[in-house]
Amino acid sequence: MAWQTELTDIGPNRIAPRGRPIEDLMGNARFSDVIFLLFTGREPSESESRFVDAILTSSIDHGVSPPSTNATRTVAACRSPLSACVAAGVLTIGDVHGGAIEKCMRTLMAAVEEARASGRAAGEVAAGAVRQAKEQGRRLQGFGHRLHTEDPRAVRLFALARELGLAGPHIEMADAFVAAFAEQGSKPLPINVDGAIGACLADLGFPPEMGNAFFIISRVPGLVAHAVEEMRRERPMRQVDPKEAEYIGPKRTEG
Amino acid sequence: MAWQTELTDIGPNRIAPRGRPIEDLMGNARFSDVIFLLFTGREPSESESRFVDAILTSSIDHGVSPPSTNATRTVAACRSPLSACVAAGVLTIGDVHGGAIEKCMRTLMAAVEEARASGRAAGEVAAGAVRQAKEQGRRLQGFGHRLHTEDPRAVRLFALARELGLAGPHIEMADAFVAAFAEQGSKPLPINVDGAIGACLADLGFPPEMGNAFFIISRVPGLVAHAVEEMRRERPMRQVDPKEAEYIGPKRTEG
Amino acid sequence: MAWQTELTDIGPNRIAPRGRPIEDLMGNARFSDVIFLLFTGREPSESESRFVDAILTSSIDHGVSPPSTNATRTVAACRSPLSACVAAGVLTIGDVHGGAIEKCMRTLMAAVEEARASGRAAGEVAAGAVRQAKEQGRRLQGFGHRLHTEDPRAVRLFALARELGLAGPHIEMADAFVAAFAEQGSKPLPINVDGAIGACLADLGFPPEMGNAFFIISRVPGLVAHAVEEMRRERPMRQVDPKEAEYIGPKRTEG
Amino acid sequence: MAWQTELTDIGPNRIAPRGRPIEDLMGNARFSDVIFLLFTGREPSESESRFVDAILTSSIDHGVSPPSTNATRTVAACRSPLSACVAAGVLTIGDVHGGAIEKCMRTLMAAVEEARASGRAAGEVAAGAVRQAKEQGRRLQGFGHRLHTEDPRAVRLFALARELGLAGPHIEMADAFVAAFAEQGSKPLPINVDGAIGACLADLGFPPEMGNAFFIISRVPGLVAHAVEEMRRERPMRQVDPKEAEYIGPKRTEG
Repeated sequence: MAWQTELTDIGPNRIAPRGRPIEDLMGNARFSDVIFLLFTGREPSESESRFVDAILTSSIDHGVSPPSTNATRTVAACRSPLSACVAAGVLTIGDVHGGAIEKCMRTLMAAVEEARASGRAAGEVAAGAVRQAKEQGRRLQGFGHRLHTEDPRAVRLFALARELGLAGPHIEMADAFVAAFAEQGSKPLPINVDGAIGACLADLGFPPEMGNAFFIISRVPGLVAHAVEEMRRERPMRQVDPKEAEYIGPKRTEG
Repeated sequence: MAWQTELTDIGPNRIAPRGRPIEDLMGNARFSDVIFLLFTGREPSESESRFVDAILTSSIDHGVSPPSTNATRTVAACRSPLSACVAAGVLTIGDVHGGAIEKCMRTLMAAVEEARASGRAAGEVAAGAVRQAKEQGRRLQGFGHRLHTEDPRAVRLFALARELGLAGPHIEMADAFVAAFAEQGSKPLPINVDGAIGACLADLGFPPEMGNAFFIISRVPGLVAHAVEEMRRERPMRQVDPKEAEYIGPKRTEG
Repeated sequence: MAWQTELTDIGPNRIAPRGRPIEDLMGNARFSDVIFLLFTGREPSESESRFVDAILTSSIDHGVSPPSTNATRTVAACRSPLSACVAAGVLTIGDVHGGAIEKCMRTLMAAVEEARASGRAAGEVAAGAVRQAKEQGRRLQGFGHRLHTEDPRAVRLFALARELGLAGPHIEMADAFVAAFAEQGSKPLPINVDGAIGACLADLGFPPEMGNAFFIISRVPGLVAHAVEEMRRERPMRQVDPKEAEYIGPKRTEG
Repeated sequence: MAWQTELTDIGPNRIAPRGRPIEDLMGNARFSDVIFLLFTGREPSESESRFVDAILTSSIDHGVSPPSTNATRTVAACRSPLSACVAAGVLTIGDVHGGAIEKCMRTLMAAVEEARASGRAAGEVAAGAVRQAKEQGRRLQGFGHRLHTEDPRAVRLFALARELGLAGPHIEMADAFVAAFAEQGSKPLPINVDGAIGACLADLGFPPEMGNAFFIISRVPGLVAHAVEEMRRERPMRQVDPKEAEYIGPKRTEG
């Protein structure tokens, strides 16, 4: 009794993700296009392709402060193999670290569905959801950031979505939530990168449980870079304190 | 006493991998370009960009047979979080699974250096190395494949390197090794995908210890796709036997 | 601003888990006693000490079939370091693999509390809970086993609890559930090792979230043994099929 | 074609590690005895049993400073499941963290073998090895400690070995190395806990590659305790700095 997979067709001299010969993808499709193909079964449009690249780029690294980086560097300080360093960093990702993507997707998808079913405007639905969360003392995930008052990644993702014609009801609803916070709250709560990725993935048609999928794929290269840097620059077994680090690379340049 | 990092400059409303504002990278650079930037400190040329995409695409998935997939699916069958599924798969990657990239890089780099220092031709150096390995009973990693007699990924990588003008002495040396095997051996030993990636990374200027870095980044999306498929299609706690699976997706189509 | 720990006092030439000098524990306490001490802050009584040993012994290994073993062996087949092999096996442990301990603890603790609050007999409360679960189509975790119709580990744990005078209301309630299944159901559902461990830990006063703690500690030595055996006996990169294995050690002997 | 295992015989209502019915082990053998049984195929003597307990106790926890604890707490701060927290901590264990056990075993075993083959005294062989290491600028692993000038765990292990009649040539050789350091060096280099465990395991007849096996098993309960404490006492996503912690448990008491 065989079990079944739809992902990649393998045979002698044949490797075909979703049925596409890999030698045709290589050199023609971008890496992110093949990720999209594996997840959806189809190749992205040119706009989707650029948008997925921007989403994956947005979370590739956040310096030394995130717990994923700290876990990876702690294992790298012990000179375990690169795969162990990356695995430890990935293990921090879940409900809390990165989890706001999925939670914000669920919030936005429920609100979009409510607006659709009731015929009410996004602003009205968002205002109700924000009021209800406040009454229940629940924090809505995906809004506000410890460090960034205006997260440049979130701003850029939404601008790009509009530029590429890919902004849909979930991005609209995210903006409605930000407006509702501003109307009802004292402290502004702009959307953060997790919330913005969530809105973008929802508008691209991905289900909420794919939130961490994109975050993991996006962050793994950053973790690899930190592990390699740790092994090259620092002595074995040092205690890694993320609050003590200093950036010594080139300063901010325009693109 | 601060410790130092050259990777990403972080401050309020500032996220700049290698000093480049992330909002400028997003929408302009491809995900693989930002991976290249994080690793090297510079953005790739257009040719390098397409080449890195092909390298990362080449190992994204190999169906259900590899141990990385099996470890990921076994954890996914237990319904552990996606990050745990991916971490377990990554932990298979090392000296054996994927390790031929680094080992082949070291072989080719030593041979290229020997040719340079001695002024001998690549073919002569390769013939000597193949003869010596045979006499010592050592298997040279990166050549031959259990399933593929002509690995379409390796063929495509070398063709693309030449098309893009990026083929250098390590790809030339890899071809010289294949020729030496054919002259000296009974059984043909074409280069496999690991060996081909190793030759390409060496010609791009990466050090051998980056071999697994590329393999991990390339394979993680495939592992994510297998974890998601396992959770969607199969019952919890099933025993995953990679030899019993059947591909049921679309059949091979031309690109 | 220091953060605080109650676990182990460390200073020059001073290592004191829960304040006990480690040199006094070594040679006097058993390993399992120090585990108990770390978790509870006190040393176990002689009866508790033997009981904890039995609990930890019960799940130390279950041959090649469990997913934890399969994940560990798959990584060991790739010759990753022992720590990577063990980590991959541990990652299978959670809601599904081992999770019945915690779930059964919650079921039994709720039923014991209900009996206490209402003054009803264990048998009556258990019968109600079993009936309700049946009506709602919910499976009660901790009862029934794929392979064992009478799990020798569960039988032994409950007998030992009584012999040592440590059986309390949760073991009594577990028996009441088994009786209720027999009265109401067609198929007998004896308690399995997970359920029995859950009842024992609850009677020892541990909270439900410690269920997986004991399972992980118990299983890690088994995973180590499988990783070591895999590396010694089998060739690298083999595909591990848990259904194809044969036990070749000494046959069953009386203790 | 079946593959083979010598570890545990499994069948309906039959679970027998190394052929011993588990219900006979439970209540009679200590957890550490069953670990010894799984690893060696035989049950330990009473002396060996107490000694293995002391070895496993010696490394169960070292407060918040080790990288294993830091990795586990960093993942626990992200509220990943207990198994992910433990896995990340285990991944720090290898060549550097804990690796001195295996390295010291190899040093001592080579020296004992050299003494046996040459008929020279332990002191003479040790003096030669220490001199040679000094000349080559190699540090001998297993001697000296960052924090402890006289490691109470090492002292206790050797005293206990002698008390139990289990001290053999490797413990004798370890003492000879310490004497050689004192004679030749300016700074005293007492044996540390890793070196002492290595000498004890070698005298018990274990091969060097089992060094990390014992360290992992010993440390896992400590990692579990730290993960549980982190989740109970600290807020999600905090940055864990091991240098800022304060022990607030009971103060040092005599055993």
